[in-house]
Amino acid sequence: MEITSLGEARFDNPMSFHVDDAARVRYNVIVEPGDTPTDDFLFEVAGPRRRIFFDPPKTRAGIVTCGGLCPGVNNVIRAIVLELYHRYGVRDIFGFRNGYSGLDPRVGEKPIPMTPEFVEDIHKDGGTVLNTSRGPVDIRIAVDNLIARRIDILFTIGGDGTQRGGAKLFHEARRRGYKLAVVGIPKTIDNDVAFVSRTFGYLTAVEEVSRVINCAHTEAHSVRNGVALVKVMGRNAGFIAAGATIASQDVNFTLVPELPFVLDGENGFLSALKLRLIDREHAVVIAAEGAGQHFFSTEAQRFDASGNPKLNDIGAYLRQRIEAYLSEEGLPSTLRYFDPSYLIRSVPANAEDAILCNFFARNAVHAAMAGKTGILIGHQHDTFTHVPIELLEQRKKQLDIDSPLWHGVVSSTGQNFACET
Amino acid sequence: MEITSLGEARFDNPMSFHVDDAARVRYNVIVEPGDTPTDDFLFEVAGPRRRIFFDPPKTRAGIVTCGGLCPGVNNVIRAIVLELYHRYGVRDIFGFRNGYSGLDPRVGEKPIPMTPEFVEDIHKDGGTVLNTSRGPVDIRIAVDNLIARRIDILFTIGGDGTQRGGAKLFHEARRRGYKLAVVGIPKTIDNDVAFVSRTFGYLTAVEEVSRVINCAHTEAHSVRNGVALVKVMGRNAGFIAAGATIASQDVNFTLVPELPFVLDGENGFLSALKLRLIDREHAVVIAAEGAGQHFFSTEAQRFDASGNPKLNDIGAYLRQRIEAYLSEEGLPSTLRYFDPSYLIRSVPANAEDAILCNFFARNAVHAAMAGKTGILIGHQHDTFTHVPIELLEQRKKQLDIDSPLWHGVVSSTGQNFACET
Amino acid sequence: MEITSLGEARFDNPMSFHVDDAARVRYNVIVEPGDTPTDDFLFEVAGPRRRIFFDPPKTRAGIVTCGGLCPGVNNVIRAIVLELYHRYGVRDIFGFRNGYSGLDPRVGEKPIPMTPEFVEDIHKDGGTVLNTSRGPVDIRIAVDNLIARRIDILFTIGGDGTQRGGAKLFHEARRRGYKLAVVGIPKTIDNDVAFVSRTFGYLTAVEEVSRVINCAHTEAHSVRNGVALVKVMGRNAGFIAAGATIASQDVNFTLVPELPFVLDGENGFLSALKLRLIDREHAVVIAAEGAGQHFFSTEAQRFDASGNPKLNDIGAYLRQRIEAYLSEEGLPSTLRYFDPSYLIRSVPANAEDAILCNFFARNAVHAAMAGKTGILIGHQHDTFTHVPIELLEQRKKQLDIDSPLWHGVVSSTGQNFACET
Amino acid sequence: MEITSLGEARFDNPMSFHVDDAARVRYNVIVEPGDTPTDDFLFEVAGPRRRIFFDPPKTRAGIVTCGGLCPGVNNVIRAIVLELYHRYGVRDIFGFRNGYSGLDPRVGEKPIPMTPEFVEDIHKDGGTVLNTSRGPVDIRIAVDNLIARRIDILFTIGGDGTQRGGAKLFHEARRRGYKLAVVGIPKTIDNDVAFVSRTFGYLTAVEEVSRVINCAHTEAHSVRNGVALVKVMGRNAGFIAAGATIASQDVNFTLVPELPFVLDGENGFLSALKLRLIDREHAVVIAAEGAGQHFFSTEAQRFDASGNPKLNDIGAYLRQRIEAYLSEEGLPSTLRYFDPSYLIRSVPANAEDAILCNFFARNAVHAAMAGKTGILIGHQHDTFTHVPIELLEQRKKQLDIDSPLWHGVVSSTGQNFACET
Repeated sequence: MEITSLGEARFDNPMSFHVDDAARVRYNVIVEPGDTPTDDFLFEVAGPRRRIFFDPPKTRAGIVTCGGLCPGVNNVIRAIVLELYHRYGVRDIFGFRNGYSGLDPRVGEKPIPMTPEFVEDIHKDGGTVLNTSRGPVDIRIAVDNLIARRIDILFTIGGDGTQRGGAKLFHEARRRGYKLAVVGIPKTIDNDVAFVSRTFGYLTAVEEVSRVINCAHTEAHSVRNGVALVKVMGRNAGFIAAGATIASQDVNFTLVPELPFVLDGENGFLSALKLRLIDREHAVVIAAEGAGQHFFSTEAQRFDASGNPKLNDIGAYLRQRIEAYLSEEGLPSTLRYFDPSYLIRSVPANAEDAILCNFFARNAVHAAMAGKTGILIGHQHDTFTHVPIELLEQRKKQLDIDSPLWHGVVSSTGQNFACET
Repeated sequence: MEITSLGEARFDNPMSFHVDDAARVRYNVIVEPGDTPTDDFLFEVAGPRRRIFFDPPKTRAGIVTCGGLCPGVNNVIRAIVLELYHRYGVRDIFGFRNGYSGLDPRVGEKPIPMTPEFVEDIHKDGGTVLNTSRGPVDIRIAVDNLIARRIDILFTIGGDGTQRGGAKLFHEARRRGYKLAVVGIPKTIDNDVAFVSRTFGYLTAVEEVSRVINCAHTEAHSVRNGVALVKVMGRNAGFIAAGATIASQDVNFTLVPELPFVLDGENGFLSALKLRLIDREHAVVIAAEGAGQHFFSTEAQRFDASGNPKLNDIGAYLRQRIEAYLSEEGLPSTLRYFDPSYLIRSVPANAEDAILCNFFARNAVHAAMAGKTGILIGHQHDTFTHVPIELLEQRKKQLDIDSPLWHGVVSSTGQNFACET
Repeated sequence: MEITSLGEARFDNPMSFHVDDAARVRYNVIVEPGDTPTDDFLFEVAGPRRRIFFDPPKTRAGIVTCGGLCPGVNNVIRAIVLELYHRYGVRDIFGFRNGYSGLDPRVGEKPIPMTPEFVEDIHKDGGTVLNTSRGPVDIRIAVDNLIARRIDILFTIGGDGTQRGGAKLFHEARRRGYKLAVVGIPKTIDNDVAFVSRTFGYLTAVEEVSRVINCAHTEAHSVRNGVALVKVMGRNAGFIAAGATIASQDVNFTLVPELPFVLDGENGFLSALKLRLIDREHAVVIAAEGAGQHFFSTEAQRFDASGNPKLNDIGAYLRQRIEAYLSEEGLPSTLRYFDPSYLIRSVPANAEDAILCNFFARNAVHAAMAGKTGILIGHQHDTFTHVPIELLEQRKKQLDIDSPLWHGVVSSTGQNFACET
Repeated sequence: MEITSLGEARFDNPMSFHVDDAARVRYNVIVEPGDTPTDDFLFEVAGPRRRIFFDPPKTRAGIVTCGGLCPGVNNVIRAIVLELYHRYGVRDIFGFRNGYSGLDPRVGEKPIPMTPEFVEDIHKDGGTVLNTSRGPVDIRIAVDNLIARRIDILFTIGGDGTQRGGAKLFHEARRRGYKLAVVGIPKTIDNDVAFVSRTFGYLTAVEEVSRVINCAHTEAHSVRNGVALVKVMGRNAGFIAAGATIASQDVNFTLVPELPFVLDGENGFLSALKLRLIDREHAVVIAAEGAGQHFFSTEAQRFDASGNPKLNDIGAYLRQRIEAYLSEEGLPSTLRYFDPSYLIRSVPANAEDAILCNFFARNAVHAAMAGKTGILIGHQHDTFTHVPIELLEQRKKQLDIDSPLWHGVVSSTGQNFACET
C-alpha cells in the first residue's frame, strides 16, 4: 500500500503530537483456523507527522465539494479551515464554489477566502457553503488555474467520481512538475466506500430514515391493510436500508441491491407481503433505490452528469406491482409511498457524524501538510488511514448477505422470500 | 344559535366545576366605527353543566375516527375515555374501528372496549388506534347497530363529511325516538373549519412543514440557481402554507388556494421567480395542494371516497412549468421537489396541539353527558363552544388575502406577482 | 383606553394594507345572563395606519433587549429590522447592547448598526444577539444619549420592569419636548402579562418542559417508589406548569403559586403523594418556582437587580420535606430532582412562537411609525392590540383556580389535596 | 482468552447462519516498527454456533437490569426476548424486577413472563421496563431461587458491579453442579468498559449533551462575560465530555478525570478562563463528574450501594472557585450551571445505539444458547466478541491523553492550561 509523497518533509510540525509514519493498521482482524497471515492490507495510520512538507505561512490551500448533499459537509469544511489556520498557521485558504466547475476559471466564480470567522457557525447547517455540482472538469484547465493561483493543497470532498477526478488533477500536476497535494475526504451517504468502515453522514441518514419509518409505520398501522413503501438512498449498497431497519424495528421487508429478490410466485415477495397483511393487517416495506434493478435489465443504461448509471425507479415499480397484485388477490389495501431522500441528506450532522467529520478533516490536513497526495482518508477499526485513490477502483463496499449485519435485518423483519440464484 | 338537546337534564354532575348553560361567547370582537351590534353570532360556552342528561353508570359511549390522519387523534380518544371514566364514572366505552365502516356490523369488526389501561400511552403515537377510513356508512344500518348495542353517545372525530354523517345519524335516531347524543370533534389538519379558530394538528403540521422548509432551503441554497418546490396540505385553504412561511422565514413564494395567481407574463409568478434567481441564485416555493386549481378549470371534476373533489396536481404542474420556463429563459437551474404530507400528518401532536386535543375532548364529553346532540365543539377567542353541525355547511374558513395573516406572509416572502382579477 | 400619540400623522404609509385607527377589540367576549355591556375594555387594534408620523428615510430606531432569556427574542429583533427596512424604508436601525445598561454611554458599548444581513439567520438561534442584562438605567442619561443619537423610536423587549422603564424614558423625553416613540414588546416566558393572552416563548417552554417531564416520568417509573420532582419557571403564575401538565399527561401533582397547598396532615400533599406511591409505585411532581412561598412567609424579602422579589427555593424545600416524610413513613423511595430552567429558556422559538414573534414585532413597528408611544403590543382573541404601559401596573395575569385551564390540570393529574383557605 | 462452556453442545442451531467457534478477533490492530506480534489478545467472535447447548423448547431464561439508567436498556431486553422466542423457539422467558434484589424471593416480586407482545413497543421508551436498583444480592439465596425456578440462562444488563455479581452467580451455580449460563451485556453510559469499543447509550448521551452545550453556549453568549459550566457523566473516564466537545464545537474548556489540571497560578485553568473572557466575553466549560477529584484528596472516601466510590462534587467546587476568582480579579461575570444527567440517561436510544443494542442482545442470546457462561459481550473493531468477566477486573478503559481523541478535544477547544505532573 504505497502512498505517494510529494518529497522529503522539510519542516517541523508545530503540533506536539505525532504519529509514526511507519505505523500501519491491519485490514483483516478476524483470524480463522487455516488462515495464512500473508493476505492482508496494511494501511498507513493517519495523523500529524513529526516533519511536514509544506511551510505553513507560505502554503495555499483550496477546498472543493462535489456531488449530492450529505450531512456533515460543512463540518468537514470548517474543521479543515480551523486545523490549517490554528494548528498549522496556514493563512491562505480558498473555497472553490459549485463543485469541480469552480476550478475552471471560464465558468467558475473567484474562489472565496476561508477564514475562521467565515466558518464559525457553518457546521450547524446542512448542505455546503461552497455549493456543489455534478460532473468533471477539464483537467488541464483546472491545473492551469491551480498553478496560477499557487494552490499547494487541494482538499476534495466527494464520492468516487470526485476522488477519481482528484487523482487526475494530481497526475496532471505531477506531469508538469508542480507539487500539488490532493487529499480526498470520502463523502457518500450510502456508506459504500471500500476501506472506510463508516462514511460521515451515514448515521445521520439512518437516524432520519428511522423517523420516516416511524411515520410510515403509523400510516400503515392506521388503516386496514395499510402498506407503507419507503424508498431510501442506496444505489449500490443497502446499508441505509439495513441500518434503519435494525434501528427502527418497525420494518417488515427490506429490499437492497445485494439481494436479487423474486417478486412473483408462491415464495416471492408479493406472496410474502400478502401473508403478512392477512396475518397483521399492515406492513412496512423499505427499498434501497438500487434494489431490484434486475427487473429492468433489458433497458438501455443511461448515466448522470457524475457518470453514475441512472437507476430505474424501483419505488414506482414496486408501488404499481404491489397495488396490482393485492387488488388481483382480492385484498383491498391502502398503499402510502415515501420518497424522503432530500429531507434526509440536507439535515445537519448528528453528534456521531460531527465527530467523524472532525477526524476525517483534521487527518486530511495532517496528510496534506506532510506532503501525501493522491490519497483519501480511510477509516478501519476505529483508526483513520491513508488510502491510495487508485485502490478504490478495485473494490466496492457492499452489504454481505452472509454477514451479521444482514442477519440482524432478517431477525428484525422476520422476512422470508425467494431470491434468484 | 339553538343547540338541540335530548331532553331535560335529570342528574347531578359529579364534577364540582360548572359552566352556566346560558353563557355565550361573541363571535365578533372587533368594533369598527359604524358597526351595528346586532349582526353577531353568540355561541354556547362549552364545559360541564350542573345537571346532566345521562346517568353515568348506565351510559354507553362509542368513539369513531374518520378521514385522513392528523396529529392528536389519539390524544382526543384518550382524553374522551379518561374524562368519561374518571370524572363521570362511565364504564362502557367502545371504539368502533376503521371509520364509519365500523358502524356497519356487516363489514365492521366488533367494537373494542376502551379502558384507561388501553389508552394509557396512546397519545405518544401518531395515527389512530381505532384505525380510520374514508366514506359514508348506510345510516339506517348504523343506527340499527347503535341501538342494538345501546349506545347513548357517539363521538365522531373527523372532518366536514364525518360531521355531516354524524348529523344524519342523530336525525335518524331522533326519527326513531332513540335518544342518541352525537358530538363531533372537528379534525382537519388544514385548519379550515368555520367557528374553530384552531383545529388540533394544525400547529404540529406547521412545525413539521417548517422543518421541511429548512431542508428545502438547504437544497436550494447548496447549488447555483437551486429551486425547492414544496407541496403541502391545504385543499381549500392555505393556512398551513401561510403559517409555515411566517414561522420559517425561508420561503420566497407562497401559493395558496385563495390566491388566483398568474403564471405567465411580465408580472407573473414565473417571471418573479426568475428575477429572484438572478438576484439571489436560489428560491424556495411552497404551494398548498389546492393552489392553482384555476389552471385546470376545464377538466371534469372527480371525487374521492369522502366526497371531496379530487384536486389536480399543482405540484407536478408547477414543477414542469418552472423547469420548462427557466430552461427557455436560459437560466440553468436545479429543481428539488418535496411532497411531505404523509410525514407530517402521521407524527404525534406537539405540546400545543396536545393541550388543544385535551380540551376539545373533555368539552365533547361534557356536552354529550349534558344531552347536547348534533353539535361539534368549536373554539373562538380562547373559549370552547358548541356549534350546531348544520351551521358548518353555511360557512367555510379560508385565508383572507386582506388580513394581517396574509400580510405577514407577504412581509416574510417579499413576494410580488400578479393575480387574476 | 387612551393611547398617547406623538402628534398628527404627517406621511403616507408605504404599505398598501391598513387598519382603521378607530377599530377596537373587546376585552370581554363572554356574555352571561345579567351582564351589563358597559364594563368592558376596548383596545386599539394594532396594524399599519394609513398615515404615519415619522418620515421613514429620516427615521432612526433603536432596539434593546432586557431581562432573562426567552425563546424568540432574536425572531422579534429580526422582524423589527426587516419590517422597518423593507416595508417602511427605514435605514438607520441600532441595537443597544446588554440591556438598559447599553443606553448609558458611560458603561455601554456603542450601539451596533442593524442590517438585513446582520439579522439574516439570527432567528435560528436562542438567546439574544444584543445581549441582555437586568436592572434599570439612569433615565436622564439614557434620554440624553437617545437625543444625542437622534433616536426617534425605541423598541423595548422585556418584562414588566423593562416596560415600566420604557414608560419613564418616554415621559422624560416628553418633558423635554423630544418626540420619542417608545413601544414595548412583552417578553415573559411565564405568560403572566395582563392583556396578552399568550406571550412569545411560552409555548416553546411548555414543549421543552414536556420533554423534561417525559424524562422525569422515565426516571420515576424505572425504580420502585421513584419520585421525580421538576421545578419550572413561574414566579407569580403557574401557566408553564399547568400547560406542561396537560400536554404531557404524565404529571401526578402540579403545584403553582396560585394554589396555597397544605403539605402536612391527612389531606395534605405529602399524604396524597404517599398514597399515590402505595398505589402506583411512582410519581411525578411539577412545581412552579413561585409555588409554596407561603411556607417561607416569615423570612425577610429580598430583591434581584430587576427589582423582582427573590423567591425562596421551593424545589429544595419540597425535596427535603418529601424525602424526610417518606422515610419517616417507612416508604423507601428514590427522589430525582430536575431544575431545567436554563435548558428551556435558551432554545430557539418553535413554529407557533416564531409566528407570534413575527406579529408582535411587525405590529410594534406599525405602532411606532404611526407615532404611538408609551404602549406595548398586546394580544387578545387572536388580535394584536395597543396597550398603555400604565395599564399593566393595575393588573397581573394569574391562573384562575376556577377556570377550565386549571380544571384541565386536575383532570390530567387526578390530584386531590387540601389548600389553605 | 479461554471461555468457560457449560459442556458439549448437543443440539442443532435452528438458525442457518453460523460463526466458527474457533474464529478469533485480534485486539491490537496497529503495527508499529519493532512490534513483536505475540503480545496480543485474541477474542472469540460472537455469533450463532452450529451446535448449541440448550434445547430451546425446554430452556428457561431470565433477564435482570441493574444500576443507573442508560439509553437502550429496553432495546436490549426486547431483542433478547425476540431472538430467544422467534429465532430459537424459547418460550419461557422471565424478567426479574428491580435489579439484583429481584433475584431474592424474600424481597423481590415474582418475575414477570416476557412475551413478544409485552416487549413490542418498549424500545421506544427510555428507562427499563424491568426497573432497576443498585447493590448486590445474597448469592446463595439468588442461586437457590434460580435453581428453584429452573432458570438455565441469566442475562445480566449492567455495569462492572453487575457483571462481577454475575460471575459470582455462575461460580456458585457451578459449585453446586447446576448448569447456569450467565451472559452479561455491558451497560455504562460512560463508555469505560475495557474490550468494548463502544457501549450502548454512550452516543445517545453525547448527542443529548451536545444539545445541552448548545443551550449553555446560548446562555454564556447572551450576557457580557457569561460563563456556562456543564457537569456531565463520567466517573472514571471523560469520554462523554470529550465526545460532546468535538461534536458540538462550542466548548472552550473540557475537564476530565484523566487530566490532573491545575486551577491556580499563572498557567492554571482559572487564569486561562479569565483570558478567554477578556478576549471573547463568554466561555463554555464542561466537566466530567470525576474530574478534579485530586482537589479533594484528603477527604475520607465513601461508597454508594453499588460499591462505587462516592465522588466529591466537582461542579459545585468549580462553580464556587470560578465565581470567587473572577470576582477577585474584578471581572464581573454571570455563571450558569448545568447538571443535566437525569435528562440525558433517561431518553430512548438514538438510531446508532438502537443498532448496537440489537447486536449486543442477539449475540448474548447466541452465546448463552451455545452454553457460554461467565462472559460478557464485547465489541472490538466492529466485531462482537466474548469476553471473560474476570478479564474486566484487570483493565479499565480511560481516555488516553496522548491519543487522537484527546487531541481532537484540544483542537476543538484550543484549551491550554497546566496539569500536575
